[in-house]
Amino acid sequence: MSLDTLPALDRRTALVSAFTVPKGFGDQTLRERRADAIELLGGIPDPSVLPAGELAEATARVLAQPGLPALQYSRTEGIPALREWIAAREGVPVSRIVVTNGGFHGLALAIQTTVERGDLVAVDNPIFPLFLRGLELSAAHTLPVRVGAHGLDVDEFGALLRDGARPAALYTVPDFHNPTQGSLSLEGRRELVRLAEHYGFVIFADNPYRELRFAGPGPDEEPFNHSEHVIHVNTFTKTLGPGLRLGWLVLPERLVPDVIALRSRQDSHSSTFVQAVVADLLTQDRGLFDATLDRARALYASRARTLAEAIEREAPGAFDVVVPEGGLFLWPRLRDADVDPDRLADDASAEGVEYQRGSFFPSGPGTDAARHLRLAFGDTGEDLLTEAAARLGRALRRQRG
Amino acid sequence: MSLDTLPALDRRTALVSAFTVPKGFGDQTLRERRADAIELLGGIPDPSVLPAGELAEATARVLAQPGLPALQYSRTEGIPALREWIAAREGVPVSRIVVTNGGFHGLALAIQTTVERGDLVAVDNPIFPLFLRGLELSAAHTLPVRVGAHGLDVDEFGALLRDGARPAALYTVPDFHNPTQGSLSLEGRRELVRLAEHYGFVIFADNPYRELRFAGPGPDEEPFNHSEHVIHVNTFTKTLGPGLRLGWLVLPERLVPDVIALRSRQDSHSSTFVQAVVADLLTQDRGLFDATLDRARALYASRARTLAEAIEREAPGAFDVVVPEGGLFLWPRLRDADVDPDRLADDASAEGVEYQRGSFFPSGPGTDAARHLRLAFGDTGEDLLTEAAARLGRALRRQRG
Repeated sequence: MSLDTLPALDRRTALVSAFTVPKGFGDQTLRERRADAIELLGGIPDPSVLPAGELAEATARVLAQPGLPALQYSRTEGIPALREWIAAREGVPVSRIVVTNGGFHGLALAIQTTVERGDLVAVDNPIFPLFLRGLELSAAHTLPVRVGAHGLDVDEFGALLRDGARPAALYTVPDFHNPTQGSLSLEGRRELVRLAEHYGFVIFADNPYRELRFAGPGPDEEPFNHSEHVIHVNTFTKTLGPGLRLGWLVLPERLVPDVIALRSRQDSHSSTFVQAVVADLLTQDRGLFDATLDRARALYASRARTLAEAIEREAPGAFDVVVPEGGLFLWPRLRDADVDPDRLADDASAEGVEYQRGSFFPSGPGTDAARHLRLAFGDTGEDLLTEAAARLGRALRRQRG
Repeated sequence: MSLDTLPALDRRTALVSAFTVPKGFGDQTLRERRADAIELLGGIPDPSVLPAGELAEATARVLAQPGLPALQYSRTEGIPALREWIAAREGVPVSRIVVTNGGFHGLALAIQTTVERGDLVAVDNPIFPLFLRGLELSAAHTLPVRVGAHGLDVDEFGALLRDGARPAALYTVPDFHNPTQGSLSLEGRRELVRLAEHYGFVIFADNPYRELRFAGPGPDEEPFNHSEHVIHVNTFTKTLGPGLRLGWLVLPERLVPDVIALRSRQDSHSSTFVQAVVADLLTQDRGLFDATLDRARALYASRARTLAEAIEREAPGAFDVVVPEGGLFLWPRLRDADVDPDRLADDASAEGVEYQRGSFFPSGPGTDAARHLRLAFGDTGEDLLTEAAARLGRALRRQRG
């Protein structure tokens, strides 16, 4: 045996070798925050509307329980108290609920259980771009489907299917779409489910923003909870805090054993501690969650309006701005074709305001996303939003004179 | 288009289709607890030595911080305060630490990043059987390697390598081996690292029990933290509580980006909340972790001794019982070849004591594991351990008359 005949250690699986380096959206999301800038980068809930005191009280209660069940192993699908609360809110049997470590984790589990390597997956265009990174778990090909003012263009998707496209899955954000902010109508959802059942694909309905509707109740019916062809991906991220890492899937019964089998080979189960604290929070005071949402909705509605008005004031006529009906983003569109959106983003950064440029969001050709700006207003106070609009106006005047 | 020509929905990936149904160990671990039996089934820490009150206080502190960083997104590799504490304790640079959702999650990440489908993986024999389930993530083949009284038989493994075996990885529990309870010597570890560096494989050193040494300090040196060929898998599960789902990997620098890339496509990061609470707990009072361990070690040492003595008293001469130097298990061996260990387990269950039968643990032929019982004493008080031994004695007398 001689050492020099032996292989150097370069073991990496094909899985990880195929991962692409984050660029664009990912780069900006992952970098350290700039203390000297107003950052409108991420869909981050405001600390003032997260129930911190109530979480601390819930923690004290669960850590006083005899035998400390919150610190022990628990079942892969989640603890009963939390699954029961979720199932009641979703209007589905408890058996269909699997607790996850947040919405993105739910998507990853959906991909790994239903998308075979090389499969075709239809996706929003423009799209929440981190989904494409998750899709690298299955090395899938993508079929971009246009997203319009009311979410996914179901008619166009239907035409693609009739023309022979045979995706294994479709990914869409149905409520307060990220980034375009539209919501799919009830009839659009029903039609999408009909297509899924007819053509035999799975819908990944990714719904982090659904509870952040600024006014009025949501639809009474959620077609995505009542089909064997939908994985409904939900999370407490935007309502109780991203740092909890707690979400859930509403699954078709037939997929529950596969998702549990996969998780039992990956990370066993979500933190019993986090689940127990949140379950206590939700059940100790049955009105607390909705009261928390009401405060959050009012705050975000006001911020959305303030930012939209400030943009119109600071850059009159420069943007088409639609105040969304919910969620955490504005998606203004540059009206003047002579303005270079990349130069605008660079100038805005120099002026001290950071946002995600629209060019990070297309999943294919045919969108005007690059003419848009994604402005996240969730965790920025109104004075700073107004100042951000002023800086954006200054950045724009660097080009328009 | 007619509906009857379209495929039924049976999409399942090859990955999940290949998962085997849990049997033996998994069945018993996953089932509901029996209220009428003394259960010596799992390596479960005792609630009395988990720092529940201190965790509640830490939670109150982190949820009083301005901006609530504990409820926000954080970096995939873990929060700085926690990584720094871990790195100092391990004696490695912070850059090599990636926080995980517990030890099993660390193993799953190691498998997915370094074991290619169809690779050969050398494993303990007998083995912690859930590792074999995790290995289904990579559909690996296994090469069983004998485990003796002092952990993995490194000499036998070296002979297998010299004879041409070329594993991609080796899995072993080096401290207080599960189930056999031996610990690998310092020289054994060094030799194992030399073999890994020579033959170009990765060691998965799975170390959940290392802090539960009943007496005396551990070795000053940990060879597993100082090689490019070792992934050292650690967890707070047995010390602060399984329900936190919090652990860490000590990784070779070259593997850090791959593990982060994989996690950023699976579940983004471990709960910031859990990380912040534990980091606060560990750093607010720098002596608390070791004081917690001291209480746990004394409790488990006493329970191990009590159970061993009770077995000898209730079934004199029936078992070879070695009181372990740490960990949460006794691994007694039936001396009388005429006793059927499966019938003994059934009779013990009928008498009201449940344990894991040794036949669940071999990873290949050539062990006497089936003649052993794995008795977990962590979460059972001494009166009940004594009663469990009496029930085991009665079960044994059903066969021996």
